[in-house]
Amino acid sequence: MTILYGDLRSRAHRVAWMLKELDLPFEHVPTHFLDGSTRQPEYLQINPNGRVPALQDGDFKLFESLAINLYLARKHGGPLAPANLQEDALAMQWALWVVSEVEKPLLFAAANLFLFAEHERNADEAAMAMRKLGRPFRVLDAHLRDRPYLLGDRFTVADLNVSSVMTLAPLAGIDLAEWAVMQEWLMRCLERPAAADWKPIKFRIPRPPTPLAVLESFV
Amino acid sequence: MTILYGDLRSRAHRVAWMLKELDLPFEHVPTHFLDGSTRQPEYLQINPNGRVPALQDGDFKLFESLAINLYLARKHGGPLAPANLQEDALAMQWALWVVSEVEKPLLFAAANLFLFAEHERNADEAAMAMRKLGRPFRVLDAHLRDRPYLLGDRFTVADLNVSSVMTLAPLAGIDLAEWAVMQEWLMRCLERPAAADWKPIKFRIPRPPTPLAVLESFV
Repeated sequence: MTILYGDLRSRAHRVAWMLKELDLPFEHVPTHFLDGSTRQPEYLQINPNGRVPALQDGDFKLFESLAINLYLARKHGGPLAPANLQEDALAMQWALWVVSEVEKPLLFAAANLFLFAEHERNADEAAMAMRKLGRPFRVLDAHLRDRPYLLGDRFTVADLNVSSVMTLAPLAGIDLAEWAVMQEWLMRCLERPAAADWKPIKFRIPRPPTPLAVLESFV
Repeated sequence: MTILYGDLRSRAHRVAWMLKELDLPFEHVPTHFLDGSTRQPEYLQINPNGRVPALQDGDFKLFESLAINLYLARKHGGPLAPANLQEDALAMQWALWVVSEVEKPLLFAAANLFLFAEHERNADEAAMAMRKLGRPFRVLDAHLRDRPYLLGDRFTVADLNVSSVMTLAPLAGIDLAEWAVMQEWLMRCLERPAAADWKPIKFRIPRPPTPLAVLESFV
């Protein structure tokens, strides 16, 4: 039995997307940090970090959403899976790249453009975060000019992982027109039927009260 | 021919370590960002992000240090490589975990404890970063109480990747005594002969001049 832990308004939507692409039956436990469920001793046995998502596949337990997706792709094969050692390496490269280069500045941009209450947004912070994102977005945009998907002609786990991290951009209404090829690819990925769980996500976050607390939240 | 790009005082030391563990001959090109080499058109053909390290293995090009190491382990096999699908998944999990949970707060802690000039350090920022690191460090410490290495009885690419990110702790003289099991494992990894390139690293970084610039550097 395969069990996915994590409310689908969290990073768990990334793994739900993969499970649906692979047409795998799974049990869903909507563990949520807001009600303390992620800090319960039983859940810490599944993921000692007290975060969601986590996967239990028989006796095997795994955390980190993008690692779970790479595991599921390899285990079940098919067109989403890497076809050889080099595709596998590139799928890992893009997963690590999106976490290193995109995830945190994108959250910070989204916070200052949308997720914070209007009077708590800071235009300088938003501009800085978008400037920072320009570097990886230019790389992605240029890469996709030569091929429709990250690894070539077909949609794979590499596209799923990178685009699922980037759901924050359309959710926060971030304008991606400057990177038109990337934007077109992103929406092509996110419009896949199996991806629909990200769409109803609506959340706000309170602005941390001090500059130090802002750093603590976003570093 | 295998070519490693990147001055060994950068994240390239992580890949040099892996190549030496595997006893692979390689050509080393010490591309460095300080002299503008990472922004040259020829280098951007190797890594469009303009960062080091990058690997060229015959015609195959790869960036992201931890992805390169996972690729090299899988390609060349031996005791460092994942032995099966589950070990492979766990090696990816730990690589993504260390980038998500440890790398940026550890750099911020190191900056405020050591890398910034003494009068530019901020004790509140250092304390915040160490508080933040307490969460992943407790997870790693507890995990290693039951097994000598991340995947079990032997040193693998998972240990190499996680410990190579953590070289910043001993470099900055960060006290890890609170997580004694983790500290003992870390030093056991970093004392391996193939790992020696991290030891001569000595660098300082200037404190960014404004709170916004601090955010820009560390988010």
